[in-house]
Amino acid sequence: MTRIEGNCRDVCEATEFVAIVTSGDDGPHVVGNWGDYMRALGIGANTIVFPAGRYRQTEQNLEKDNRVQLLVASRKAQGTRGPGQGYLIVGTAEIVSSGEIVNTVKAKFPWARGALVIHVEAVTAQL
Amino acid sequence: MTRIEGNCRDVCEATEFVAIVTSGDDGPHVVGNWGDYMRALGIGANTIVFPAGRYRQTEQNLEKDNRVQLLVASRKAQGTRGPGQGYLIVGTAEIVSSGEIVNTVKAKFPWARGALVIHVEAVTAQL
Repeated sequence: MTRIEGNCRDVCEATEFVAIVTSGDDGPHVVGNWGDYMRALGIGANTIVFPAGRYRQTEQNLEKDNRVQLLVASRKAQGTRGPGQGYLIVGTAEIVSSGEIVNTVKAKFPWARGALVIHVEAVTAQL
Repeated sequence: MTRIEGNCRDVCEATEFVAIVTSGDDGPHVVGNWGDYMRALGIGANTIVFPAGRYRQTEQNLEKDNRVQLLVASRKAQGTRGPGQGYLIVGTAEIVSSGEIVNTVKAKFPWARGALVIHVEAVTAQL
């Protein structure tokens, strides 16, 4: 799949947190964000937005290699083998510091310095 | 901190899932496992064990570079700025296919082919 839809959307609507992984000179860099923050900004078919607080290393990594991987999961979503499903969401990302999307983010999260915008390219069932 | 204790333990006791990140030739490799599977096997001060189902790419990555990063998080754990806290757990890992630990894993998870054993070296608050 290439879009946030169906079972993958169910998991995104339920996941308590999201792991966000970029690639840096020292290897993988892992940060997190809350599922409810993602949901508050609206989950598009191909776009996910998070409020960006610090994320300095993530930003530096994305400037060299804009690939990103997200892991979402929830026991509340139906899985292929019972309750519980995860999804790996792969795409590219950027940290945006001005414009309409940042105004939207700052209206809901005044502490944010910008928006982490993810352009979804593929989603794969996990767990 | 270097041990699973205090607030970090609270988060491990509450996290719904765990993101597990290794480094491969093509960059970061991200898999997941369930928090309740981790808890069923007992969370040590310096050791975390998961049932290993497939994890072929994770195993291949660990053979070349045994560093691993885990992300755990929960809204149910108390955070520094309100409800919700995450932790990044860094260490080394191996997939073990025989021995006492694997017997323990297989007794609870008959589908497992082995145990993913994580040796914790550092934990850092996130989120």
